[in-house]
Order: sequence, then structure tokens, then C-alpha cells
Amino acid sequence: LTNVFFCKCCAPFCSGSLQIQFANTEDKQEFSKFPTKAGRRSLSRSISQSSTDSYSSAASYTDSSDDETSPRDKAQVNTHGSSDFCVKNIKQAEFGRREIEIAEQDMSALISLRKRAQGEKPLAGAKIVGCTHITAQTAVLIETLVALGAQCRWTACNIYSTQNEVAAALAETGVPVFAWKGESEDDFWWCIDRCVNTEGWQANMILDDGGDLTHWVYKKYPSVFKKVRGIVEESVTGVHRLYQLSKAGKLCVPAMNVNDSVTKQKFDNLYCCRESILDGLKRTTDIMFGGKQVVVCGYGEVGKGCCTALKALGAIVCITEIDPICALQACMDGFRVVKLSEVIRQMDVVITCTGTVPHAVTFITSALIITVSSKHIRTSIKYASLRSPELTWERVRSQVDHIIWPDGKRVVLLAEGRLLNLSCSTVPTFVLSITATTQALALIELFNAPEGRYKQDVYLLPKKMDEYVASLHLPNFDAHLTELSDEQAKYMGLNKNGPFKPNYYR
Amino acid sequence: LTNVFFCKCCAPFCSGSLQIQFANTEDKQEFSKFPTKAGRRSLSRSISQSSTDSYSSAASYTDSSDDETSPRDKAQVNTHGSSDFCVKNIKQAEFGRREIEIAEQDMSALISLRKRAQGEKPLAGAKIVGCTHITAQTAVLIETLVALGAQCRWTACNIYSTQNEVAAALAETGVPVFAWKGESEDDFWWCIDRCVNTEGWQANMILDDGGDLTHWVYKKYPSVFKKVRGIVEESVTGVHRLYQLSKAGKLCVPAMNVNDSVTKQKFDNLYCCRESILDGLKRTTDIMFGGKQVVVCGYGEVGKGCCTALKALGAIVCITEIDPICALQACMDGFRVVKLSEVIRQMDVVITCTGTVPHAVTFITSALIITVSSKHIRTSIKYASLRSPELTWERVRSQVDHIIWPDGKRVVLLAEGRLLNLSCSTVPTFVLSITATTQALALIELFNAPEGRYKQDVYLLPKKMDEYVASLHLPNFDAHLTELSDEQAKYMGLNKNGPFKPNYYR
Amino acid sequence: LTNVFFCKCCAPFCSGSLQIQFANTEDKQEFSKFPTKAGRRSLSRSISQSSTDSYSSAASYTDSSDDETSPRDKAQVNTHGSSDFCVKNIKQAEFGRREIEIAEQDMSALISLRKRAQGEKPLAGAKIVGCTHITAQTAVLIETLVALGAQCRWTACNIYSTQNEVAAALAETGVPVFAWKGESEDDFWWCIDRCVNTEGWQANMILDDGGDLTHWVYKKYPSVFKKVRGIVEESVTGVHRLYQLSKAGKLCVPAMNVNDSVTKQKFDNLYCCRESILDGLKRTTDIMFGGKQVVVCGYGEVGKGCCTALKALGAIVCITEIDPICALQACMDGFRVVKLSEVIRQMDVVITCTGTVPHAVTFITSALIITVSSKHIRTSIKYASLRSPELTWERVRSQVDHIIWPDGKRVVLLAEGRLLNLSCSTVPTFVLSITATTQALALIELFNAPEGRYKQDVYLLPKKMDEYVASLHLPNFDAHLTELSDEQAKYMGLNKNGPFKPNYYR
Amino acid sequence: LTNVFFCKCCAPFCSGSLQIQFANTEDKQEFSKFPTKAGRRSLSRSISQSSTDSYSSAASYTDSSDDETSPRDKAQVNTHGSSDFCVKNIKQAEFGRREIEIAEQDMSALISLRKRAQGEKPLAGAKIVGCTHITAQTAVLIETLVALGAQCRWTACNIYSTQNEVAAALAETGVPVFAWKGESEDDFWWCIDRCVNTEGWQANMILDDGGDLTHWVYKKYPSVFKKVRGIVEESVTGVHRLYQLSKAGKLCVPAMNVNDSVTKQKFDNLYCCRESILDGLKRTTDIMFGGKQVVVCGYGEVGKGCCTALKALGAIVCITEIDPICALQACMDGFRVVKLSEVIRQMDVVITCTGTVPHAVTFITSALIITVSSKHIRTSIKYASLRSPELTWERVRSQVDHIIWPDGKRVVLLAEGRLLNLSCSTVPTFVLSITATTQALALIELFNAPEGRYKQDVYLLPKKMDEYVASLHLPNFDAHLTELSDEQAKYMGLNKNGPFKPNYYR
Repeated sequence: LTNVFFCKCCAPFCSGSLQIQFANTEDKQEFSKFPTKAGRRSLSRSISQSSTDSYSSAASYTDSSDDETSPRDKAQVNTHGSSDFCVKNIKQAEFGRREIEIAEQDMSALISLRKRAQGEKPLAGAKIVGCTHITAQTAVLIETLVALGAQCRWTACNIYSTQNEVAAALAETGVPVFAWKGESEDDFWWCIDRCVNTEGWQANMILDDGGDLTHWVYKKYPSVFKKVRGIVEESVTGVHRLYQLSKAGKLCVPAMNVNDSVTKQKFDNLYCCRESILDGLKRTTDIMFGGKQVVVCGYGEVGKGCCTALKALGAIVCITEIDPICALQACMDGFRVVKLSEVIRQMDVVITCTGTVPHAVTFITSALIITVSSKHIRTSIKYASLRSPELTWERVRSQVDHIIWPDGKRVVLLAEGRLLNLSCSTVPTFVLSITATTQALALIELFNAPEGRYKQDVYLLPKKMDEYVASLHLPNFDAHLTELSDEQAKYMGLNKNGPFKPNYYR
Repeated sequence: LTNVFFCKCCAPFCSGSLQIQFANTEDKQEFSKFPTKAGRRSLSRSISQSSTDSYSSAASYTDSSDDETSPRDKAQVNTHGSSDFCVKNIKQAEFGRREIEIAEQDMSALISLRKRAQGEKPLAGAKIVGCTHITAQTAVLIETLVALGAQCRWTACNIYSTQNEVAAALAETGVPVFAWKGESEDDFWWCIDRCVNTEGWQANMILDDGGDLTHWVYKKYPSVFKKVRGIVEESVTGVHRLYQLSKAGKLCVPAMNVNDSVTKQKFDNLYCCRESILDGLKRTTDIMFGGKQVVVCGYGEVGKGCCTALKALGAIVCITEIDPICALQACMDGFRVVKLSEVIRQMDVVITCTGTVPHAVTFITSALIITVSSKHIRTSIKYASLRSPELTWERVRSQVDHIIWPDGKRVVLLAEGRLLNLSCSTVPTFVLSITATTQALALIELFNAPEGRYKQDVYLLPKKMDEYVASLHLPNFDAHLTELSDEQAKYMGLNKNGPFKPNYYR
Repeated sequence: LTNVFFCKCCAPFCSGSLQIQFANTEDKQEFSKFPTKAGRRSLSRSISQSSTDSYSSAASYTDSSDDETSPRDKAQVNTHGSSDFCVKNIKQAEFGRREIEIAEQDMSALISLRKRAQGEKPLAGAKIVGCTHITAQTAVLIETLVALGAQCRWTACNIYSTQNEVAAALAETGVPVFAWKGESEDDFWWCIDRCVNTEGWQANMILDDGGDLTHWVYKKYPSVFKKVRGIVEESVTGVHRLYQLSKAGKLCVPAMNVNDSVTKQKFDNLYCCRESILDGLKRTTDIMFGGKQVVVCGYGEVGKGCCTALKALGAIVCITEIDPICALQACMDGFRVVKLSEVIRQMDVVITCTGTVPHAVTFITSALIITVSSKHIRTSIKYASLRSPELTWERVRSQVDHIIWPDGKRVVLLAEGRLLNLSCSTVPTFVLSITATTQALALIELFNAPEGRYKQDVYLLPKKMDEYVASLHLPNFDAHLTELSDEQAKYMGLNKNGPFKPNYYR
Repeated sequence: LTNVFFCKCCAPFCSGSLQIQFANTEDKQEFSKFPTKAGRRSLSRSISQSSTDSYSSAASYTDSSDDETSPRDKAQVNTHGSSDFCVKNIKQAEFGRREIEIAEQDMSALISLRKRAQGEKPLAGAKIVGCTHITAQTAVLIETLVALGAQCRWTACNIYSTQNEVAAALAETGVPVFAWKGESEDDFWWCIDRCVNTEGWQANMILDDGGDLTHWVYKKYPSVFKKVRGIVEESVTGVHRLYQLSKAGKLCVPAMNVNDSVTKQKFDNLYCCRESILDGLKRTTDIMFGGKQVVVCGYGEVGKGCCTALKALGAIVCITEIDPICALQACMDGFRVVKLSEVIRQMDVVITCTGTVPHAVTFITSALIITVSSKHIRTSIKYASLRSPELTWERVRSQVDHIIWPDGKRVVLLAEGRLLNLSCSTVPTFVLSITATTQALALIELFNAPEGRYKQDVYLLPKKMDEYVASLHLPNFDAHLTELSDEQAKYMGLNKNGPFKPNYYR
């Protein structure tokens, strides 16, 4: 899921989520193309709507701004006299600060990292150029990196997802931020360039989300890599690109694949979807869960999370699966495993949680939600055909379309078939905290690693670090770990401080 | 809960919800006063905010209207040439119609009532004057009454809760509606008067919610009661007034107490709260439920609903109770029963579901939600003292206040301690359908009852009608009842068509 | 359920549980007859099997006794020199004592009653003649009565359910007990007579379970009632008889109906079945619950308890119901409501939880469990027809029959269609403790009530006593009740010590 | 868990389960020794008790046999005239057949394997020597192998676990079985020898459980390996030995590690414990779950299964963990994570689910159940110290000991601290079916693999076979898999028939 939330570049995959179900030739061709800005933009729009609609009061505050001047054309100075930034409106800094403070309350792992590192400053000397979504949560990450000793320059990985007031708050504290909500494609690359190409400062670490920053440096400033000690990449797409570079022998620095760390995989999909499926459905449709008949397509981690929540709230849930192992789990967990065509007429809600493919853990995560208010829809739905001239589309609320058949039957489509939890609900800050902490630790590890520990390859975080990330989040729950005695540890052949599980453990 | 949602007059009780916890002398005096408009207004404001904030897109559409002219000063005519109505803007009728249509999809019990009564028109000749909230859901009720043969005139029971576009849609179809959002107190009584006091039309049935309409007719037009066959009252407060009238020997027509019907009592609190607690918390705070420590004060039906949902989503819930029977149920259901003072320091969230008193089933239902982001709050909180000068209040979002202690600790208070599910979440249309159907059946029963069946007293719906209401809602779930065989029915001494439970069954 | 467990006289009703489903004329006639010993015996046999098979090691110890001499023909003396008792073997007293001690651990409410009453001895002067099942749990009750000051004489209400070693333990401590496992009908009445008709001792209180003792006194020693202050009756049948006596004007002392106390009704069915359905199924069939398709007939408290447990363990459960209110609850709780004939072919397990009738709360509680290992059984099953010559019955384990169709299909029938939780699982001692405590309190109340408080009628325990019973059980869970402040109590018009709910509250 | 059920050789580990908690020097020395028969015997005794106490009626039937003659001294002939077997009593064959038939109903995967292979006989020519537990479930496996064309000779891997009547049934159909319940150590090796060393028949496949058979062949008949095409090993210990052989270069045939197949790992621990924890607790203690405070030590798959079931039945569960990742999962799942010493005084039940070590997935699985009936036990308990002279042990039922402190406090210890689900509950046949099917497929694969596919090494089953095993079990649940369309498969780069997940997927 996190890859979803953060992943600008999964746009074609996301619309691809529909294609998986109803793939046709044109779609496939589109899919195989390198993600273009056009593709990106279509998702970006959805992210933008998400921010607007249901993100937080912050977003709507931002929206109320009617200033149409491009930030590139404004001269702005923060209260410290610096103008090395480009944001929508530096005056929103105070409001943004409050949003950051609220986020900090659920990201205490990063706060505790700050405290533990107060003396040593493990990132002293690090010059990090970063390209991520710019939200209150990433602001907590960035300010943690600064607290650990790093200098940072930052830009947005998505043209729509920037929370302007957060960008302003960062700029106000002296972080050179180049980002605003609603950038043009030209703005996008201009911002990246302003981060990388600045006089008297050269990055020695890269934190990327989607690979655009990395791509730009490769293309325009390859010499930068001479000083770079490593790349930390968070998104599925970005990781995919890095593996391709590595395969082609073109990766010239070590890279850390944060996306596939155990902590991220174990928590993001299952727990995040358990929380957001209900939220997304309520915010968009005010639907009552009790007694609703729901078919969930796919019983991977995403599907498991959705099913747990829906069943608990009184929905009657069944499953479709292609993989017999997941299907058997669904059976044991108390869900009927059916074919969509067998049950579609009885279902009130169809939720697709398909999208796993074999070569990566979860590189397409899709969640098409169709709320079938009529029970007479005949077959599984092909998105393209939903746009046929016989069908009338009526937008009844933001992210909610009624699709009306000639005979009057209505199907409610949420988020136009895009990801519900991206578009229509919020993602718990706590989950983002896990990823952000992992990113911070990956940066520390790469920056401080002795010569030779990492070569020009893509690495996973060592198990022990995964466990450390988890341990930093336990105080949120007032959880107390048990410590092995010396005897017990010796008997079991374990180090008392872990790692406790083998690397292949999931 | 329904009483909560519909109950204009429980305003003092609602602020009273805090007083129950921390009652003091002044509060008590206020409580014992007859609810004045002032008291009413304070709740009304909250309802209004609710509509604005989280109700539906409809409400926000309404809000965007910047027309400041009083509807009383406007000359409006619907497309059929009638001007016997007074709404904000008759031109919003089409939009209101869509909202009504959406509501109809979850109120199929009323739709099926319409169908079943197509031939007979059981309300032919009924002239109903009604005073309820005017929302898409009540519009479905009103239009059902019309379809059953009744003539209706309608006004709002609350000065803030009217959905203007729904009022317009009703007026457009020819129902004389007198209501808009944001009436003054004078407007309020003017509207009631316009409903009752009209030339050439005299009501013979009253449908009231809160007792204001009944009160007005008693005071101004007592002669109307000569023709009135009965009153149907839905709210706790209104029912209370009716019992007082009856006790005083002043009730001059039969009255039906819809509030205490089994179907309503059994479903509203438990299921509605199970759905809305999560919704309300997410919309206001984006909180993650997993692992949160929550104390729920009160394990009645409201508390049971909240606890079920929170536990299912991974919260760690404990309970406070005064009643040993409910406490023992909490134990058996797997919740620790504690005193608030024992656990308050460890809790992330405090939810009050107190408010039952012995003489009515649930006449005060309160839900103060305090999200304790700090764990250092020392004692249970007294609302008045929260307004002390040492504490800083910061409104971070609509319905969300941070209360900041001198040492920097923050407590998040939702809805200013008023009902969360009223203010911050939606109530499932399906649940409102149960109440609306009961109201319709009560009207039919009173209107058609043979002379002498009902005297000048307050009645509960017969068990059989409760069962009928339930049965009308089963098709929503595609549920199929089993029918007793003749032998089985005879053996058990039951009528095959019910009632199946004794009247005292709950 | 308790009525089930304790009710000798519900024998015809229990076999009636099948008749409810498939009633025919002969059955009905049998049903309407006064329960004869023959009818009683048929259940007794089942109780006996229950004790033998799955009750506890105690029972099997008893069984291993090969002493065939009738206890009536033995001369036995306890270690204190008394021979005023008649049990199987006084030497088993020590073993019985251990069983009683184990039971005491889950009956701490009675133990605390003993402690609270140490000074006052509220039953000093009481001479109680009792007729109940004689098990470790009732022994704890009897010894509590003695500790509270009463003199007791005791006999068994069932010819098969006596735990011989427990009877021995009671006799050893000086309680005159007349009971053993496997009494003849003549023995049964002889034992009752020995309890009542003893020189120099006359009962002034009666504790009955099933009404046989009361019946005997009425018939043989009516003069005893001159001194009797009251009857406490626990079973559905016994209560029914008392109401008949009262109606006929023949009840000459006050009687307390313990069966319908709130605490008993609220806890026995729901929680007891939630625990015992899994236990009974595992002990008999070793069935795996995960993924099993189960239809539960009836969604009253018994059905709700079964469904909760089965769903939680991964079974896929659907419901049949005749009552639309219960059906609607099933829907909201996430169960499909179906007709048996629609689903029977797909089901793995059929569980009947039918048996409510309108004039009493739950006087027939039945649980026929059919485990359908074949999915080709065509129709709902009629017990009589299961005994048809075409079908082969194979007893594969105790309480487990395979019924084999000519085509080889097998149906597994548990407990021959009798109550599963009576026959195949244990009932938690804690639940029996609730009933036993209520009985003790009822005795105290009747014995100490001032002249005139109770007339010659049948009474329910006052609400406050129900609450007291509940409160005595809270320490088992380390539960801490909250106490209303004076202000709060005054505001709510409640006494701080309860009762907190109206009498009609359930 | 399966390793638990089947694992003769984990005896020292199992007593080790206590040592993990309270390890001392002597224990450790014992642990590091090669498992001797002495060690084995101590577990075997427990298995034996398990069979006797709670296994099935079959076991008790067996027990009632009072024939003391050693099977080795009896001359027995089956009805076909063969005497090539050695079982307790060939006359029990019919009864054993019925037990096998009952097992077949939950092992339909094997039955369907038989059907699919009716034409081809994939094991035609296979001569399998097997050494496993001999139960109804393994009988279904053996008879499946025979149906697939194999010739089998079989012996028991445990001296106590043989179901005599099942062994008789196998011998009756012509499978040379050498096994009975209660073998001496000499008998044990004699039986193995009789399987391997028979004139005119030489094994070409080995199916082992624990490695004793393999060990014997290595030691006594190394030349047999010239013809053997492979070894299939199921237990943790046996697999461990094979890896050691392989490492030492002494493995001279391919071996298949069935223990670590995904299907087994994914299902056995989680689902099996979810079912058996409740069963084991009820059968031994009749405990009521509702409201019980339980601490579960360890939140791996075993712990997760236990917690799910207990929470669902109303217990209040908290967790101890050493691994922060599992601890964080526990938090998100709604369990407090505590140290044992913090909570031990409040707990009613302590359940240990510790036992994971890093080098194997789960080679120590322990489940010490301590039911603390007193709440005054001061510290975590060390098993050795429980045997101190101050403490009195009282065996109250089979597998249930009361340990009595000098001050009268009692602790209930189940199964003497050994595995509860091994000793006190049954394991669902369905779960055993998964393992048995995997064993059958592994045999087929090794027997038919083309020269060179497998070398002299230890292999895991390919993912695709795991998926096949799962798919064979879906019909039990009437589950219908969805099939990818050609387009979808191509798009996702998957073969339509799987495998659907990467090999490292868990």
C-alpha cells in the first residue's frame, strides 16, 4: 500500500488494475510503455482530488487560496532572510507547522531517533537530495534527517500531492524546498533541477521515490555519482528501475531497496487496508456494512485486511482467488471461495484486491470498488465498456459515480476504479512512520557503512534493522519486549539483541 | 440513537451528558427547566455543523448558496403553479430529487409499503400535518404517506437540520413544505402555524418529533383535536410530554409512542453505534485503531456497539460500568471492567456511552469522545473545568479541539463533548428506514382503527407490527423467513404469522 | 440452558425438540400428558450417559464401582457416627470432597456469601428440604446454606444424575442425603419421603427443581405447609406447575421463580452455548471448524451463542428463522438468513436451536446436531423417519451415530438428536454458580421476609437481587464497578446501590 | 505443530520447551545429546496417554484388550492366508477399517489422487518402505500409495502411537505392517528390520518420519541405497539429520524435505492451534473461556492461532514476545505486549507458545499450559523447581496436575508442561491430509523424476506442487478457483496453471 500512496509512477499500473481484470490489447500496449508524464498525470489528478476531498482540513485550507501566480514568478523570503526555496506561499508556514506537529504525535519512532542521535549526529556531513511526496509525514522525516546532522534539499515526486503549507513550513525552517501543488510537467523537472544543481553544494546521498530524481541525475549530472555514497529508493517502480540498472551494469553506487523490507511488507498492506476500507466506503457512500454481501477479489495481504474489517462489521464476505494457497487460507478463515460470475448477481459490493504478480511482491495493488445498488448486473465489468455510450455516468459526489444502465439499474463506481484507499480515505500516519523510519535508517547505514560493505548493487535492509524499526514503534503501544536470558539465548543460538528470525522469514 | 439523531429537545440532556459525569448544582437547575428555544438552539447549531461537515455533498451544495433573502420574503412558484410552500430556493428541486432517490435505495421497506398499498390507499382521506427533520430520508417517508393516499403539510422540527434542496423537491411535487435551514425562532413558529392554520384544510392526523407541533396545536388551535384521530410521536422528549399530558388527563386523542417500539430499540443503538463510532473517529482524527487503548464508559447497547467495532479493528478496549449486570456481560464478552481513575493514564481514547436512566429506556445518550494524545492527564475531566483560563483551546479541524495544558500536554476533544455520531459521522439510511416505516404503520393503524380500539392514552405499537416492520426490511438482505407448518404452529400455540414473541420480549 | 441441565421433567419437551420440527399426532398426545416417570426416565438415561461420557473423571470413577447391592440394603455410618443418609458408598467421600473443592474455585460467589454471612447467619433456624441434581456444584450450594445457618435434608431430582462420590462427601459432613446414581422409580420416591418424613424435624423451606418434591409434600404431607415459609423453584416445569397451582388458588405459600431471573436468562443461553457448542462438537466428532458450512436453525439466545463461536472459529454460518426480528438481527450480525431446503445440500453441519414458545421465555431449548458428511441429503430430516428400516444406524462412538442411506451416504447424528450441550459437553461451573447464588438469595429473602411482603403467589426475584447476584460474580474477573457520586445519583434519580435498570429491562 | 504431532524425536526438545523458559545446565547437556531411546520413550509415553485419553473411541477399544502376549510370539494369518506382518491382533481389522473410513472423509485429497491416477499408476514399480505413526490418517496415505501402484512395507516411528486396530486393518488388506502399541526398544528396531530385510523384495523408496528408518538402512544395509531413488522425510529432526548428512557429503540419494513446504508451514501451526487450544483446555479442565485473563508467551504462528481462538471466545489475552516484529503485530492485532513478571499475578491462564529458533522454522514448539487458579503465584515458574519437595502434586484427571503450595495455593499444570495439542486434544484430520498429500506427491516426484533432475541433496517441493496440494484440498470447501484468461496471464507474465507466487513467498 505504501508504494501506492507514495508511488507517482505506478499510475499506469493502477489503471492497469482494471486491465488485469479486463485486459485488452490497447491497454497492454499502454502498459508496456515507459511511464510517461501523461500516465503519471492521470494518477496525480487522483492524488490531488484525494487531498482535496478527504485528506485533512489542511488540504482544503490550501485550496481556498485563489492566488494564481506561479511560484516560480514570486519572490519570497523566509523570516531568516533566505530565498533558497520555491513554494506556493511562505506565509502558510505557521499552519503547516501545526500539521507537522500533529503528524509528529504518531511518528514517535522518528522523534526517538532524533533523541538517540543527539550526541553522535550520524548524518553529520550528509548532503541529501530528496524527491518524495511533500506531506506532514515526510516533513517529519526530513526534519529528522536534519536533526541527525544532514543537510537536505527537497522536491516533490508528484505534481499534485504537495501540501503547500507543509512545504512552506519546511522552507521557513531553512530546508530548501522546491514544490507546490499543481506543478506543470516543466515545473516538475525545474524543481528537481533546482535541488540538484545548486552552487556550492553537492549531494552525497539520494532519497528517491519513483526514480525520477535518480533518472535526472543520471541523465544530466552523472558526475554527481562520484560523491554519492548511496541511493535509498522506496517505490516499487523506482526499485524496479534500479534492478534494471544493476542488471545492465549501469548502477554506479549502492542502492537500498526499502520497499521490500519485512516491516513494510508485513504491516502496510494488511493493517492499512483493514483500517482504510471502512473509512473509504463510509466517506464516499455512507453505506451501512451490516448485512451487506461483499465479494472481495484477491486474498493477498490487501484482501485479507479488507475482509477482516468487513466481516467484523457484519458484512457477509466471499472471495475470488487464482492461487490455491491463498484460496485455502480464505476457506480456513471462514470465507466462501467463488467465481465472480457465480455470485455477482447477489452482491452488494465488489472490491478488487488483485494485482500481485510473481516477480515482485506487490507491484500492482489495485482496489476497484463497485457498489452494486442494483442486483441485476449480469457479468463482471470491463472498465472500457463502462464508458460505452449506452451508459450514463452521473457524478453524485466527489469520487462517486453512478453508472446508469438503459433499464435504470445503477452501479456505483468509486474513485473511477482507482485505488480507494489512495483516493477516498486517509492512510494512518503510524504506518507511514514505519516506512519513514526505515528510510532514515537506510540513509544512516549507507552513509556510515565502511568501504566495501556495499557494492554497486541493490540491497535489502538487514533483518536486524527491520527489527530495530519495529522496536522503535513499540513505545507507541506501551509494549514491553521480553529479553532472553544469557542461558536462553545461548541455548537457542541467538544473539540476545536479535536478529530473531532468519532473513527469509516473512 | 435515533432519538438522538432526531431529538431537537434533548439539547440540555446532551450537554447534560457531561453533567451526568460531573454534575453540579447549576447544571441540575438548568436541566430541570423546560427546554427553551435557547437550549434548543445550542443543539441545533451542532446539527447544523453536522450537516455542513460530514453529512453529504448535498449539504455543502446548500451551503454554497449565498442568497441572504429570507424565504418568507420571496415569492416562489413551483412548476405546477402552486405557491403553497415556503422553502429556500425552489430551483434546487432537481438536486434534491436525486438525494431523495439515493435515499430510496436504502429505504425499500417504504417503497414496498407503497406498492402493497397501491390498490387500497389505506391513508385515503388522511390529512397529516407533520413536523420532523426535513432530510432525504423523511422525504421518502412523506412521499410514501402521499402515495398511500394522504394529504400532507410539513414543517421542520429543527431550525438548522433542513436540507434545503430536499424541501424544494418536496414543494415541487406539491407537498406544502414550510422549512429552511437557519430559521429564526420566529420563523420556526411561523412555519408551524402555516402548516396547521390554512384555509379549507384541517388536519386529522399529527406526526410529531419533539412535541412542538402538538404543543402549538394545543395552545392555539385546540379545536383541531376534535377531528384528529391520533398523534404519532417519535422522540423521547415528545413521548415524555405525551405521558405527562396523559397523566394530567389532558390528552384528548390517542397517541402512539414510536420511540419505544422493539425494532427501534433493538437496532438503533447497537448497530448504529457499531457503524458510526469508527466513521466518526476517522473523519475527525484519521486515528489508527490498531493497538489503541480505549476505555468505553458504559456497556449498554450504545457501549456494546462501540466496543464490538473497536475490538474488531484491533483496539484494546476496557469498560467502566455502574450496573453489575452490564459489567458481568462486559466480562463475559472479553472486556476488562475498570474504574476510570485506574486506567486513565494509559488510555489513548476515552469514549463515554453513559446516559441511561431508570425511568425510560435510554433517554440520555451521550458520547463524549476524548482522544488523549498525551498519557499524563491526571483525572477524569469535568467539562466546565476544561474551559478554565489555564487551558488553551485550539480548533484544529471542524469538530476537533485540542485542549492544551500549561505543560504542553494536549487532549483532543471531539464535537465539544457532544454526540459524536450526531456531529461527526453519518447515520445509515437503513436504520432511519426502520423508524420511518414504524411511523407510517402507526399512522395507518391510528387512522384506520375502529372506534374504541384506542382511547385517549399513549400506546406502544403491537408486537405484531414490530415484526411486520422487521419483515419489510428483510428483502434488503435477500433474507428468506421460514414459515411454521400448521402442525408446528399448533403445537407451539402460535399463529403462523406471528407475533412470535411475547410483548415483554426484548 | 440451566433449565435444560437441571430439568429432569423437560424430558418430553426434549424429545419434543424433534417434535417441534416434525410434530405428529402421537407425539403431541404424549406431550400433553403429565410427565410420567417413563418420560422422565428417557431423559434420565441421557443425563446418565452424559455423566458417564464426558462429565468428568469423577463420573467414570463412580462407574467403575461394581457393587450391585442397593444402597437401601446397606448399613452405612459416616465417621461421625451418623447413619441418617443413604448413598452408594460413604467411602467415596474423600474423592467427592476433592470434586467439591474444584467446583468451589469457580463458585466464589457462594464462598463470599458464606463469608459475608459469618456473623449474622441469615438462615439460622431454616430447615430446608431440597431436591436437585446432586453434583459437585449443588454440593457447594448445600454447604453454603449450612454455613448460613440452615439445616438441610437433600434428595436427587433425577434418578441418573447423582455423582455418588459427591453424595458421599455430603453425607460424611453430616448432611442427610438420600440419592444415588441409577435409582429405580420406587427408590426415587422413597428418597424424597425419607427427606421429608423424619422424626423430630420439620422443613420450613423447600428448594425444588422440577416440582416433584413439592408435589409429594402436597400429596402426602399437606400439613407441612403450615410451617413452610416459601418454595424456591428453579426449573421451567416446576415453575409452570406453581403458576398452575396459583391460578387454581391452591398455592398455600409464597414461591420464588428463580428460572426467570434476569441474570439467569441473560447469561445461561448465550454464553453457555457459545462455550459448549465447540466443546460438544470436538469431543464427539473431532471435526475441524475452519471452513465448515453450518446452518443454525434459530437465532434466539442459544442460536446467537452458537453462531458467535462457530463464526469466530472460521465456520461459514447461515441461519433459519421464523421471527422477522431475530432474522433482521442475524442479517445485521453478518449471517445469511435462508430456508433450510435452499441450503441443506451444501451444508456440512445442521444445528437446531429452535424451541422458544411464546408463553414462557424459553421452555423448550433444543439442540439437534446433524453433521452431514454427505452433501446429498435431500430434505430436512424427520427423526421418526430416520428410524426407518432402509436406513442403517451405526454407533461409532458414544453419542455419535452414523445413519447410512442405501446409496452409501452417511449422516452423523449427535446425541440421538437430544441436547448436545447436555449430553456431549460440560457446562461451565461459573454459569451454574449464578443460578445457585440466586437460589440461595431467594431462600434468604423468603425466610427473612417480614410477614405480608409475600403472599400465596409466585414471585420473581427483585431486580436489585439480580444485580446483587451479578455483583457477587464480578470478583471472579477482577472487575471493578464504578460508583455513582451522590450528585450523579440524585441527578439520575437513582439509588447509588441500584437497582439501575427498570424491572422490565432485559 | 505437525512436527509436534508426528515427532517422536522432538522429545528432548519438548521437555526442552520448559528449559527454554527455565533452562539450566543439566538440561542443556541433555539437549545436546543425540536423541536416545530414553528421551524418545519419555515423549512416547505422553503420546500413549494422549491416545488413551482423548484420541478417539478407537484407542480405548484398543486399551480394553487385556492380551499380554507379545505380538512377536503370536502366529497370525490374515483372511488371505498371509502372515507377512506383525500386529497386536489381526481380528481387530474390521474395527480399524471403520476408523480408516472415517478418516477418509476428511482426506478427500488423497482419495482424489487415487482417482486421478487410476489409469497411469505413477508409482507402479515403486517399492516403498515406510516408518511413520500408524494411525487411521497414515493408513489412508499408505492405501493411497498402494492404489497408485506401489508395494509398501511399513513400521511405526513411535513405540506408543500405533492404533492397533488400524495396523490390523492394513495387515488384513495385505500391507506387511510391523507395529503395535507399547513396543519395547528391541521390538522397535526388530520391526524396522523386518520391513527392510525381507527376502525377494528390496525397497527403492523410503518414507521416513524422524530418520530412524533411514539411520538403520545406512547402518545395516547401505547397499540398499544403490536402488533407492529417494527419501521423503517429514519431521524437523529427520530433516535436520539429512541436512547434516548432505553437509558431510554422506547423502547418497536425493531427499525431499516435506517439513518446510509452504502448505505445511502456512496451515499447520496457525489453524491447528486455533482449533486445538480450546479443545485441549475444555477436555482437561472444563474451564470457561469468557472473561478469563490469559497470557500467551510467543506470538509466532502457534501463538497467533491460540490468541485468535481465545479472544474470539471472550478471553482477555496479552502477549509476551522477544521479537519486535512479532510484538508489533500483536499490538496491531489488539493484544497488549507485556513482560510475564508484570502480569503473572493477574492471569488465570499462562500458555507458552515459545520455541522458534533461527536455524529452522519451528523446531521447538512448546505449549506449557498453566492454569493459575490462585492469583498469588509470584514469579514465572521453573519446571524443575515445581518438583521441589515443598510442593504437593495431585493428579486430578488424566493430564491434569494440581501443584499445591504450602499456603494452599494451587496451580493447574496440563500435560506436565508438554504439548497440550499433542496430549490433550485431537488434531484435525484435514490438516494431516495436507501433509500426507505432500508426502505422496514427493514420492511420485522423486520416483518419476528423470535422471539428473535431483542430485544427492535435500530438496524442497517446488512451489507448483505446494499449490497443487492446496488445490486438491479446495473441493472439501466447495471452493471454486478463478482461472486467469490468456490475456491476463500474459499481461502478468504468469503461467495460467501457476505457480502464482515466487518461491520465497510465504
